[in-house]
Amino acid sequence: MKTSKQGLSGVEGFLFLGKNIGIKRAKKDFGVLYSEKSCNSAAVYTKNQIKGAPLYVNMEHLKNGKAQCVIANSGVSNVATGEEGVKNAEKTAMLAARELGVKKEDVLIASTGVIGRQLPMEKIEKGISGIKNELAKNGGFAEAILTTDTFKKEICVEGRGFKIAGCAKGAGMICPNMATMLAFIITDAEVSSNDLQKMLTASVDKSFNMVNVDMDTSTSDMAIILANGAAGKADKKEFQEALDFVCVELAKMIARDGEGATKLIISEVINSKSEEDARKIAKSIVNSNLLKCAVYGNDPNWGRIMCAIGNSNAEKIAEDRISIWVNDELIVAGGKAAESFDAEKLSKVLGKSREITIKTDMGVGTKKATAFGCDMTEKYVKINSEYTT
Amino acid sequence: MKTSKQGLSGVEGFLFLGKNIGIKRAKKDFGVLYSEKSCNSAAVYTKNQIKGAPLYVNMEHLKNGKAQCVIANSGVSNVATGEEGVKNAEKTAMLAARELGVKKEDVLIASTGVIGRQLPMEKIEKGISGIKNELAKNGGFAEAILTTDTFKKEICVEGRGFKIAGCAKGAGMICPNMATMLAFIITDAEVSSNDLQKMLTASVDKSFNMVNVDMDTSTSDMAIILANGAAGKADKKEFQEALDFVCVELAKMIARDGEGATKLIISEVINSKSEEDARKIAKSIVNSNLLKCAVYGNDPNWGRIMCAIGNSNAEKIAEDRISIWVNDELIVAGGKAAESFDAEKLSKVLGKSREITIKTDMGVGTKKATAFGCDMTEKYVKINSEYTT
Repeated sequence: MKTSKQGLSGVEGFLFLGKNIGIKRAKKDFGVLYSEKSCNSAAVYTKNQIKGAPLYVNMEHLKNGKAQCVIANSGVSNVATGEEGVKNAEKTAMLAARELGVKKEDVLIASTGVIGRQLPMEKIEKGISGIKNELAKNGGFAEAILTTDTFKKEICVEGRGFKIAGCAKGAGMICPNMATMLAFIITDAEVSSNDLQKMLTASVDKSFNMVNVDMDTSTSDMAIILANGAAGKADKKEFQEALDFVCVELAKMIARDGEGATKLIISEVINSKSEEDARKIAKSIVNSNLLKCAVYGNDPNWGRIMCAIGNSNAEKIAEDRISIWVNDELIVAGGKAAESFDAEKLSKVLGKSREITIKTDMGVGTKKATAFGCDMTEKYVKINSEYTT
Repeated sequence: MKTSKQGLSGVEGFLFLGKNIGIKRAKKDFGVLYSEKSCNSAAVYTKNQIKGAPLYVNMEHLKNGKAQCVIANSGVSNVATGEEGVKNAEKTAMLAARELGVKKEDVLIASTGVIGRQLPMEKIEKGISGIKNELAKNGGFAEAILTTDTFKKEICVEGRGFKIAGCAKGAGMICPNMATMLAFIITDAEVSSNDLQKMLTASVDKSFNMVNVDMDTSTSDMAIILANGAAGKADKKEFQEALDFVCVELAKMIARDGEGATKLIISEVINSKSEEDARKIAKSIVNSNLLKCAVYGNDPNWGRIMCAIGNSNAEKIAEDRISIWVNDELIVAGGKAAESFDAEKLSKVLGKSREITIKTDMGVGTKKATAFGCDMTEKYVKINSEYTT
């Protein structure tokens, strides 16, 4: 897939803003993603039963499949804030709509940060005032949504006659099987909001829903796509492929930037009985705290991969048919240590690379899936033991 | 419940042994639990689909509901070892049976330690030789089964006319919803093996299945009970209560001794719609890495409790009815910060105690459940990043 270095600015017709409005001390904490015209739009949300106030507002606003702008803040997630929280999110949309001259229903809201605190509405109100003039092609939106992330996550790809760009945030409270973290995707392709919904859901299933940092599914997770249609109709299959690519690359960036992480773990499962089994097994491997610690410490403790496979709730596991490779090194054959297995060598393989691919051949079918995760380090504990203090 | 300090030795008719046979450098790594007469017996096993070889042997040997001795080793778990692993476990049983003069089918096997290595059969064979004469009332069996545990886990309670004693091991690879870790329980009460099976299953559901250290369900988990009948029939209700107590206390010891842990977390859920919901919510709270880190750092980040409740897959959650207390301090009322909430005070509450009780009132019913966990520390990562090296 042809990528461009431009990030969000690669798609014509969109303007952006990222700035500090005083929620955080100095880092950008407020962002605007704005389309010059109304877009077809779709979103997927967290499956956590306790959801952030912005999600309820967006579900309402997206009923007509249209949106023109996203107002995002970091620092406070506006979750577990009761009715006041929903009112604050609605007020934010109303203020932004007035400032930008768009319909309130065309404004989407996203908040990320500490749970249980109310939005500082004075700061938000002051921050919104004047944004229309501050919007720019390179507006720094992708930075404004970050929390414990260590780098911004942005990508732009070019299909035949259309472009798709996206940005995402997420380093902690990241767990698979859900519409995970915040992701904003824009395109100039002309796609109906119904198709956007189907295609985004399909892409999210292969990407964000296959990422795990810490098994903690956030209350604010959301992926949003806006299509301004400027480039005209795109081939559906090609558009889906490009969207998959954007989502998978953003998902990998999130895994690589997992809180405290030093390594990206890619878990490929092949020859599984069903795709569902392959997904469960691939995720179970990146979910294991113990394996994540072993990868961090270059500990050749491959038994933990077998343990994770057994814990996957997959329907069909034939222990004696399992083979496992770590970065192309054969570790397990027939469910036990391969004859060529050499603990010291595996330790070196783990130590040599910032990207660890664990390939598991289940030997019972033809289906496959890939999940993305990261190692677990002392720093993860440090970051999360002093998050609000 | 009346407890005795004697541990396993509190029940008459049983003898024990714990010694080093060279699997580990110096610590005890081999144990024998021996009954002078054949016992009614029952066991529950891990739900991990990849199981240790000893578990398959025990399932076979326990078909008649009888057992007389347990041979346990630590250091090597005999998991992912193929047919050779099963043969080694069978040979161990056969050698022990010959040495102790009991039937091979009356010997149960337990192994814990690194996955994927074969048992060192020469050391096992040499170790078994002579055990009959080494057995003693205070034989140190509870120590021989430890791995990363920092203290031995043993308890003895006295019911009306009977005693139950038990020991357990487990600090890492501990996850709820399964028959968890190794636990050995002995009693002088006369109970049929069918009843033992039912009662042990019920107790395990309230105790070991409600413990979580790291969401990693071991391949070797197993709880075994042996009843020698010496004290005659016991009242069933009383016996169940005593067995519950033994299992819950051992479960708490395991949580308290979680790898690297500094604090025991007790998660009580009350007024839930169903017991199933209460169990899911209580466990989801002790399962959250993020919350575990916050408890470690005395970070008053209560939003993570709300996040965990939302992730529990409970059927009935009414966000605005949730109240939460941490060690009797009201934190959340009506699903958001209680008016009296004071972050600094909560931080002090967390810092003051080695035992953190999180009480969650769901406000939608009358059912309750309790789960047990521990905080997550840098030491957990350290221990598990260099486990085999």
